[in-house]
Amino acid sequence: MADTSPAMLVVSAHAGDFVWRAGGAIAAAALRGERAVVVCLSYGERGESASQWLQGKSLEEIKAIRRGEAEAAASALGAEVEFLDLGDYPLIESPEAVATLVDVFRRVQPTVVLTHPLSDPYNGDHPAAGRMALQARVLAQAIGVANADGSYPSPDEIIGAPPVFFFEPHQSEQSDFKPTVLLDITAAFERKRAAMECLPAQKHMWSYYTDLAIRRGVQVKRNAGPNLGLPHETMGEAYVRYYPQVTDVLA
Amino acid sequence: MADTSPAMLVVSAHAGDFVWRAGGAIAAAALRGERAVVVCLSYGERGESASQWLQGKSLEEIKAIRRGEAEAAASALGAEVEFLDLGDYPLIESPEAVATLVDVFRRVQPTVVLTHPLSDPYNGDHPAAGRMALQARVLAQAIGVANADGSYPSPDEIIGAPPVFFFEPHQSEQSDFKPTVLLDITAAFERKRAAMECLPAQKHMWSYYTDLAIRRGVQVKRNAGPNLGLPHETMGEAYVRYYPQVTDVLA
Amino acid sequence: MADTSPAMLVVSAHAGDFVWRAGGAIAAAALRGERAVVVCLSYGERGESASQWLQGKSLEEIKAIRRGEAEAAASALGAEVEFLDLGDYPLIESPEAVATLVDVFRRVQPTVVLTHPLSDPYNGDHPAAGRMALQARVLAQAIGVANADGSYPSPDEIIGAPPVFFFEPHQSEQSDFKPTVLLDITAAFERKRAAMECLPAQKHMWSYYTDLAIRRGVQVKRNAGPNLGLPHETMGEAYVRYYPQVTDVLA
Amino acid sequence: MADTSPAMLVVSAHAGDFVWRAGGAIAAAALRGERAVVVCLSYGERGESASQWLQGKSLEEIKAIRRGEAEAAASALGAEVEFLDLGDYPLIESPEAVATLVDVFRRVQPTVVLTHPLSDPYNGDHPAAGRMALQARVLAQAIGVANADGSYPSPDEIIGAPPVFFFEPHQSEQSDFKPTVLLDITAAFERKRAAMECLPAQKHMWSYYTDLAIRRGVQVKRNAGPNLGLPHETMGEAYVRYYPQVTDVLA
Amino acid sequence: MADTSPAMLVVSAHAGDFVWRAGGAIAAAALRGERAVVVCLSYGERGESASQWLQGKSLEEIKAIRRGEAEAAASALGAEVEFLDLGDYPLIESPEAVATLVDVFRRVQPTVVLTHPLSDPYNGDHPAAGRMALQARVLAQAIGVANADGSYPSPDEIIGAPPVFFFEPHQSEQSDFKPTVLLDITAAFERKRAAMECLPAQKHMWSYYTDLAIRRGVQVKRNAGPNLGLPHETMGEAYVRYYPQVTDVLA
Amino acid sequence: MADTSPAMLVVSAHAGDFVWRAGGAIAAAALRGERAVVVCLSYGERGESASQWLQGKSLEEIKAIRRGEAEAAASALGAEVEFLDLGDYPLIESPEAVATLVDVFRRVQPTVVLTHPLSDPYNGDHPAAGRMALQARVLAQAIGVANADGSYPSPDEIIGAPPVFFFEPHQSEQSDFKPTVLLDITAAFERKRAAMECLPAQKHMWSYYTDLAIRRGVQVKRNAGPNLGLPHETMGEAYVRYYPQVTDVLA
Repeated sequence: MADTSPAMLVVSAHAGDFVWRAGGAIAAAALRGERAVVVCLSYGERGESASQWLQGKSLEEIKAIRRGEAEAAASALGAEVEFLDLGDYPLIESPEAVATLVDVFRRVQPTVVLTHPLSDPYNGDHPAAGRMALQARVLAQAIGVANADGSYPSPDEIIGAPPVFFFEPHQSEQSDFKPTVLLDITAAFERKRAAMECLPAQKHMWSYYTDLAIRRGVQVKRNAGPNLGLPHETMGEAYVRYYPQVTDVLA
Repeated sequence: MADTSPAMLVVSAHAGDFVWRAGGAIAAAALRGERAVVVCLSYGERGESASQWLQGKSLEEIKAIRRGEAEAAASALGAEVEFLDLGDYPLIESPEAVATLVDVFRRVQPTVVLTHPLSDPYNGDHPAAGRMALQARVLAQAIGVANADGSYPSPDEIIGAPPVFFFEPHQSEQSDFKPTVLLDITAAFERKRAAMECLPAQKHMWSYYTDLAIRRGVQVKRNAGPNLGLPHETMGEAYVRYYPQVTDVLA
Repeated sequence: MADTSPAMLVVSAHAGDFVWRAGGAIAAAALRGERAVVVCLSYGERGESASQWLQGKSLEEIKAIRRGEAEAAASALGAEVEFLDLGDYPLIESPEAVATLVDVFRRVQPTVVLTHPLSDPYNGDHPAAGRMALQARVLAQAIGVANADGSYPSPDEIIGAPPVFFFEPHQSEQSDFKPTVLLDITAAFERKRAAMECLPAQKHMWSYYTDLAIRRGVQVKRNAGPNLGLPHETMGEAYVRYYPQVTDVLA
Repeated sequence: MADTSPAMLVVSAHAGDFVWRAGGAIAAAALRGERAVVVCLSYGERGESASQWLQGKSLEEIKAIRRGEAEAAASALGAEVEFLDLGDYPLIESPEAVATLVDVFRRVQPTVVLTHPLSDPYNGDHPAAGRMALQARVLAQAIGVANADGSYPSPDEIIGAPPVFFFEPHQSEQSDFKPTVLLDITAAFERKRAAMECLPAQKHMWSYYTDLAIRRGVQVKRNAGPNLGLPHETMGEAYVRYYPQVTDVLA
Repeated sequence: MADTSPAMLVVSAHAGDFVWRAGGAIAAAALRGERAVVVCLSYGERGESASQWLQGKSLEEIKAIRRGEAEAAASALGAEVEFLDLGDYPLIESPEAVATLVDVFRRVQPTVVLTHPLSDPYNGDHPAAGRMALQARVLAQAIGVANADGSYPSPDEIIGAPPVFFFEPHQSEQSDFKPTVLLDITAAFERKRAAMECLPAQKHMWSYYTDLAIRRGVQVKRNAGPNLGLPHETMGEAYVRYYPQVTDVLA
Repeated sequence: MADTSPAMLVVSAHAGDFVWRAGGAIAAAALRGERAVVVCLSYGERGESASQWLQGKSLEEIKAIRRGEAEAAASALGAEVEFLDLGDYPLIESPEAVATLVDVFRRVQPTVVLTHPLSDPYNGDHPAAGRMALQARVLAQAIGVANADGSYPSPDEIIGAPPVFFFEPHQSEQSDFKPTVLLDITAAFERKRAAMECLPAQKHMWSYYTDLAIRRGVQVKRNAGPNLGLPHETMGEAYVRYYPQVTDVLA
């Protein structure tokens, strides 16, 4: 691995997912001066744009609207954003899509990866995105794997084995999402709120996800060890770590 | 909480368990200059002392032998050790035993707790110890809970909510032990080996647990993120974190 | 949603599945005067027609036989039946097959959906059918999803969020099928038996599934609350509810 | 069974649990004119009364305070309440405590039972209460089981097999609580809020559990079938059904 | 271990359990000329003798009736039977009861152990029996563990590590019972039927468990490898193996 | 089924997998004079040949090297080997690949099948191979399923229902691999070691998998029943049985 400066790669099924589910982690990375790159596999143009369809907008118009919103939200968080335009509802898994993601992983050289968990009975695109992100992460580690266009070798280095965190689905318990990491996003929350407000069509979600941040913040405090001294208004996000944590201190 | 300097509390069912299963973590804490306290609930006098029974030793003689070995091993690791002498095979759970542990928790003020996991089809004492440690940790947080002798209030502060790590059982898969934390114990392994050698009756275990440390070390390297730069001869121990990790950085 | 009169949609991998596994529920709906529509994804022509292949029949002959049997059985139950002829052994999942199902969901406007559970180590077609039914149910809710032929918009309304019930696989425990709903089919059993007798090639199954109905009936009585007053000869079918039940009374 | 008019029995570990976790279900039953009986196994005097201990109150004073609050809250909900005073932190399981509960079950003749789920890593009293409630429910069905005082036979009838619902723990995912029933408590919420306000020492919980009711209400709507027509401000409570549902209609 | 001739030890919570659940395995062992010993922890006098209580019989009369039936059934199977008379509903776990079982294990020197599985939401005595059997089996292996009366050493050898099989509960799926071993009891079924007929009070169970044997027999055939050549009327029993199978041939 | 002489079929994702994971079982079968056939779905040319890529070898050169090594290793074990050359990293599941495997199953007529388990977070090719092997095994049992080239009928008989064993993944716990069968490979280990030494590029694995065989051998002894009399240096391999064991003796 050539470059080991911190870089967060966020693989998001639709254009808005990264804001609601991981906006705090992304903003916190940016506030630390670290690079954060969001890859939206689709715009959520069919499955998460009901109001625009009801207004009679065309597919291309809707994609453009969703893209603009996602760019604004990423900017508010301090992140870069890319769009693979793979289509949604359904987001179809394919070797080609995975190969494209392999190129992204090698280019970005992530030191941490965020994506959707592998179960969601309400939205099949989310686990499809998670499965493709995991597969790409493994393939990008192998020097024998070619580029998406078939050429060889890659212009980029292979990657190491960055940790993977699943962010929170809309109905956590029904998606068998049992948080193993509670992230304190108190300092980053202002940016997350600003990013949420870049998504006006889902205005009812602003308070929903603010309330969720408060609830996860209560759990941050409840599960903290004895010496953290957390403020009263702690805000949180919940994650599931996919691979074991490697550390040299138990804490 | 009055005192938040690091302190590790290890709750061990029998006199030898803490050495094989958590010796690396204990020695690493000691090497960092931190306090480590081991509480042995029993001496393992009936269930893990077959050779001494075959030699015709008495119960009290066997307890004394096991106690001496455990003291030597704790010393080699750099830890304090206490013995509650609750009896083994079976180690019987009781409100009184838990109350005694509550006093220990309040006295030690642990910032991290290590104990046995909650399933072990080969040895019922191990999950019994784990259950009592967990219960004591919760009770020790409540200001209304009295001391073991019924007096009130406690001479010590109540404790916070220290993280709990389960150490590795003898047959991991059969005990549903899926490691969530891989601890690098390379620097501490020399002390762990010295502590193992304080237990001469189980000499065949020395190589078994050295091999295990190598295998867990391979996994430490395999699961490490891109920028750890681990040495070839990495040694490891495996743990399961019981409560969610609280952090402000995903890594 | 335009139409909310009760309508049951049953998605069946092969031509016979709906009879053995859900015949009681279907007949009960019909007896209540409700609409019930069965969609057979295949005829079971390769995987469940051994006797006909041994007789030297052709593929088309076998399909016709199975179709005729299924039509007779559906009629005996009081249900409509459709055939998608997607092929079996294996039943191949595809975006096209799912899109066809989306059209069916929108046309039928089901208020309840029955299909195969997601695990069956003895028959991969069954979980494939279940997965496609679930995916179609989600897609059919989204106004932006086009018709199977690519046209837009749909001539039918989008659907709501009908509850989904998995019916019983042949080897329940091996398929991790833990019933969460026990359906009393006593009044409907006569129709179910008549439907089973429309499938002469599997005559040995008639008594097998009659015995199963008795066994599930015993469990209906065993799990009933205090005030049901069930008859001695209660017959039952077992189901697993996939999404949480929504109710305003706990009972 | 002599009496099959509806009666709800709620088995609560501490004096406040039934309010936060099941207040909506209780109030809804009362609003339907049904009987609801709450049994508090303890007052929560040691584990959930920190502020009173800090004020220097005595054990008996604290018990009296908690009892008064619980009586007021039960009254606000429209329920009866009883106290077994078994002690808390820890609530100790015993055959005697279970036998006392058996008498309660036979006296109340519940048609539905609510209690704590069987896992809660943050509070061992909760699963202990759940286990005792379940055991008592089974024993109360057997005509050969004597009364708690050893006399025989019981002055009351044996009970049937009422359904059991687990109410929501404080940290649902960590307690492996995956809701299988979402209860619409919109009409009952005003009473639940009034009951919460009878517990002034936990004022910070009022908004926490109001927010939770909103979140569960969102899920009520999200999981409702097509024909429910729920209002915008739907409030909810989540439950897990322990035994299979018995029904004659899938819906 | 002194004696390694085959010996089956069956630990049964109540006087009838071993007949319904393991009668085929017991009879098959006896037909092979092997020793089979059944230990009934209670007579099922309170929980499984409703008809006798309704007839006004006394506790001692009921125990005597159940004992006589169990002796007749054991005799029909070709097994020895012992009774520990520990009481039922509830069967209370205690160190003393386990110690008594340790003596039994050492005296019988089982090469295979059969008992109840660890989950049964309908009857808490069953898992209690299973837990005590498992604990006794581990303790009986330790040379340091004393006899039930406190004397030392044991007049019998310690035992090895006999495999443990859980037999089938009344509602398999609700008890999370997923069979891992299907036992062909065709040759032994006649004896099992005769043993069932020694239990006249549960006459309705005769056909229920005959039907179950047929159903498990169908699964025996369905899961058999290619070269077993099983008869049409194969009868079966289902088991769960608790510890891994040790073998030198995969088959 | 025409031929029921023992035949082991091993479905391996890459050219080396069968050696590390199942070499003992294969050699043991060969030592008993039984047929063993290994099918390598790919050569592992992209994902498990890093050193050759670093040396600048071409894809075809690498395939030839891996093929030669696998042939030598199979020969050392006493097994036949075939290569389907389906490509790796990713190994893509397809109906065509499964159909090719169906032909292999019918030609080989396996009495036992070994393959990869269904979960491996570190290598997606492994579960893909396992899924295809399972699907082919089911399809090969159906007389109506055509040959891979579309012709009908098959020149070979359909197969029965051979048992399936999953062999051990590289990180057992992370792959949810809980051994249910411990195979004694002491007599076969010399051949397994010889086969490992046919794979020079992975020399560091020789000692790793020798250590693993020792560890599994310790568990063989630990879990053995009382009368096996195993030697001190027992070597083992771990497996998970996928379908229930069918037997007429519990042992």
